[in-house]
Amino acid sequence: MTGLLRSWVDSANTPDTDFPLNNLPYGVFSTGDGTMSRCGVAIGDMIFDLCRAEGDGLVEPAATPVFDVSHWNDFMELGPEAWADLRTRLTELLSEGSEPLPGYLVPQAEATMHLPFRVTEYTDFYAGRHHATNVGTMFRGAENALPPNWLHIPIGYNGRASSVVVSGTPVRRPCGQLKGPDDAAPRFAPSARFDFELEMGAIVGVPSDGPIGVAEADAAIFGYVLLNDWSARDIQAWEYQPLGPFQAKATATTISPWIVTAAALAPFRCDTPPREVPLLPYLQEPGPMLYDIALEVALRPEGGEETVITRTNYREMYYSSAQQLAHHSSSGCPMRVGDLLGSGTISGPEKDSRGSLLELSWGGKEPLELAGGGTRSFLQDGDTLTLRGAALGDGYRVGFGACDGTLLPAEKRPDW
Amino acid sequence: MTGLLRSWVDSANTPDTDFPLNNLPYGVFSTGDGTMSRCGVAIGDMIFDLCRAEGDGLVEPAATPVFDVSHWNDFMELGPEAWADLRTRLTELLSEGSEPLPGYLVPQAEATMHLPFRVTEYTDFYAGRHHATNVGTMFRGAENALPPNWLHIPIGYNGRASSVVVSGTPVRRPCGQLKGPDDAAPRFAPSARFDFELEMGAIVGVPSDGPIGVAEADAAIFGYVLLNDWSARDIQAWEYQPLGPFQAKATATTISPWIVTAAALAPFRCDTPPREVPLLPYLQEPGPMLYDIALEVALRPEGGEETVITRTNYREMYYSSAQQLAHHSSSGCPMRVGDLLGSGTISGPEKDSRGSLLELSWGGKEPLELAGGGTRSFLQDGDTLTLRGAALGDGYRVGFGACDGTLLPAEKRPDW
Repeated sequence: MTGLLRSWVDSANTPDTDFPLNNLPYGVFSTGDGTMSRCGVAIGDMIFDLCRAEGDGLVEPAATPVFDVSHWNDFMELGPEAWADLRTRLTELLSEGSEPLPGYLVPQAEATMHLPFRVTEYTDFYAGRHHATNVGTMFRGAENALPPNWLHIPIGYNGRASSVVVSGTPVRRPCGQLKGPDDAAPRFAPSARFDFELEMGAIVGVPSDGPIGVAEADAAIFGYVLLNDWSARDIQAWEYQPLGPFQAKATATTISPWIVTAAALAPFRCDTPPREVPLLPYLQEPGPMLYDIALEVALRPEGGEETVITRTNYREMYYSSAQQLAHHSSSGCPMRVGDLLGSGTISGPEKDSRGSLLELSWGGKEPLELAGGGTRSFLQDGDTLTLRGAALGDGYRVGFGACDGTLLPAEKRPDW
Repeated sequence: MTGLLRSWVDSANTPDTDFPLNNLPYGVFSTGDGTMSRCGVAIGDMIFDLCRAEGDGLVEPAATPVFDVSHWNDFMELGPEAWADLRTRLTELLSEGSEPLPGYLVPQAEATMHLPFRVTEYTDFYAGRHHATNVGTMFRGAENALPPNWLHIPIGYNGRASSVVVSGTPVRRPCGQLKGPDDAAPRFAPSARFDFELEMGAIVGVPSDGPIGVAEADAAIFGYVLLNDWSARDIQAWEYQPLGPFQAKATATTISPWIVTAAALAPFRCDTPPREVPLLPYLQEPGPMLYDIALEVALRPEGGEETVITRTNYREMYYSSAQQLAHHSSSGCPMRVGDLLGSGTISGPEKDSRGSLLELSWGGKEPLELAGGGTRSFLQDGDTLTLRGAALGDGYRVGFGACDGTLLPAEKRPDW
């Protein structure tokens, strides 16, 4: 594994930056001076303005501009060869020894980040062995924790693309139908068990119109983001039988602003855990397609201090995104550029490595202690949730930046 | 209720046309002479070319053209006032007594129809009382047929927008994981229980970013199409617990080529059936928001003759699309122009009014007799399924045209 690649941007050469030259993640930004949102690449604490670089001919991925827009979809459409070429060119332009181009840099502190791509459709999976076992134990008992299909199928359901927002967007506590086991009828009220789910999101960059294999699926993934699948547990408990989660997961889904490319993560590939039962051939991986990415979640009450409430790793997943995408296409389901695949909640085997409050507080029975005093079973209004993640190299990290959201109180509607 | 409105297009004045002046449904078409696909309105057996009419200033819904594109989304974005204005203008232009404009007509027989709108996201509901009871009885027994939430919630799940195709598109039998109750492990094979579902689809024409009420939701629906939610029952049986249908419903969803507007259907509004338990206020309808639309499905084996296998009516639904849309938005889920809401399978109370082969053949136990000989429990390769529907007025019908698809054999893949 290579060490830190040095850049003429000094802040990219420190061991604690998420954005060394090894990373080069892609985002969409605007600055306060009324400029349009446009494409950029993070380097240290700066953004290299790709729109400007393209305008001046420093990068030229296509005959017509692709970086003067507020999404990376047009670039993704160019395909894997263009993806590799851009990475090579950016590495060249930003390397130590190349002529510095300070005029193309915008400080991240002065930029507003936007959703980095147009989310075409959004699918959420359920591929974490520990999470599925924990939740299954709480909902159905330890005997029936893991559904019979779970070790054979990367279980997933279609989510709502319109709900996807970029880090920093406040999230409004939803209302919905709630019914406790002893209530005679449901009522419509604010969710009292609003939760987060720590996930990774994979972005499809190559379309397909029929079934594709796992290797082809792996090559079709453009990159990854952190993903918080906000979940209203009480709405879900009442609505989810027999057709799955719906309004419980539709309020918001927060992703990190930077797409870390599959190329940047390549040195951190690892195998999925050993199979407990053999997979059918269409799901077998020809090589390591999961990634070793350290993850953590912090909770900060309004005006309070932050507590890191879980630490885990993406390598805990039983299924890779490549396997999920192959399964997704297996029925002939057309896949499109900009499709987002949520990994499923990433829980580790230990209590403090669980990826949701539902698991961390064991359904509210064991509230978490916060650093500044107070406890949490589920989220309270004003809480800020922050996901962080990085693949850890030798003297450098390939990070995602923060993925955060603050919970606003439920809307009051007199007619309800 | 008004009678037939007469047009200078003679074929629009017959009692059996789906497309009298009362209807004016919107589609996207192209002709064989290499022209682009563009917007048009059906009148009798002709299409009035709206792209050309807009180019010549006969209609002018916006400052820039909206009909020279292959979808109705741009027009929908203009909002309900523009929708009403266009309908008024087209009624004027095409009425008997107005100056005939034969140069703007294209025979439907010479046109190819395309998907009439860009499907932004697709949601499928489960709002038919008889269908839910039938399927529940087969899957869970008569005691547990209707899930406890069913009479309180218009149960729905997110489907796959990329799977939506226009009538006439062949459908490939999918492969997937199949496992019988006595099988030790699943296998990957072509679905042997491939089925249709007779539904209506409602198209969202007004976006929303937070919860909306039922009346607002009703006003946000631009129009309706026929919808066939092709379903692989054997894939579904093995995959659907605990998160709902996924690959079983992802192969294809066929819609009719013409969007019949809510305005055209207004004379046929009717109430939903009496509530068995009171609905929560956010789901109560301030007026009739369902429609009286006669529906039928025909099955034609390859080279054989057609059998009408079911006749039912949209008014059988327990929940209207307006209620479904209000519920969909209740968590704050953003809704977008072009969102498609499937009604759920429309089964009537009688055996010959059921909306799927699963119900018609009672899970394969009572195969259907076909007119030309032979029987069907589920679809066979080469079968053509045709959905038809019309609201029946006094001496006229407001119809949808045919919604059909032919089943192709499963793809053979040597690597599986």
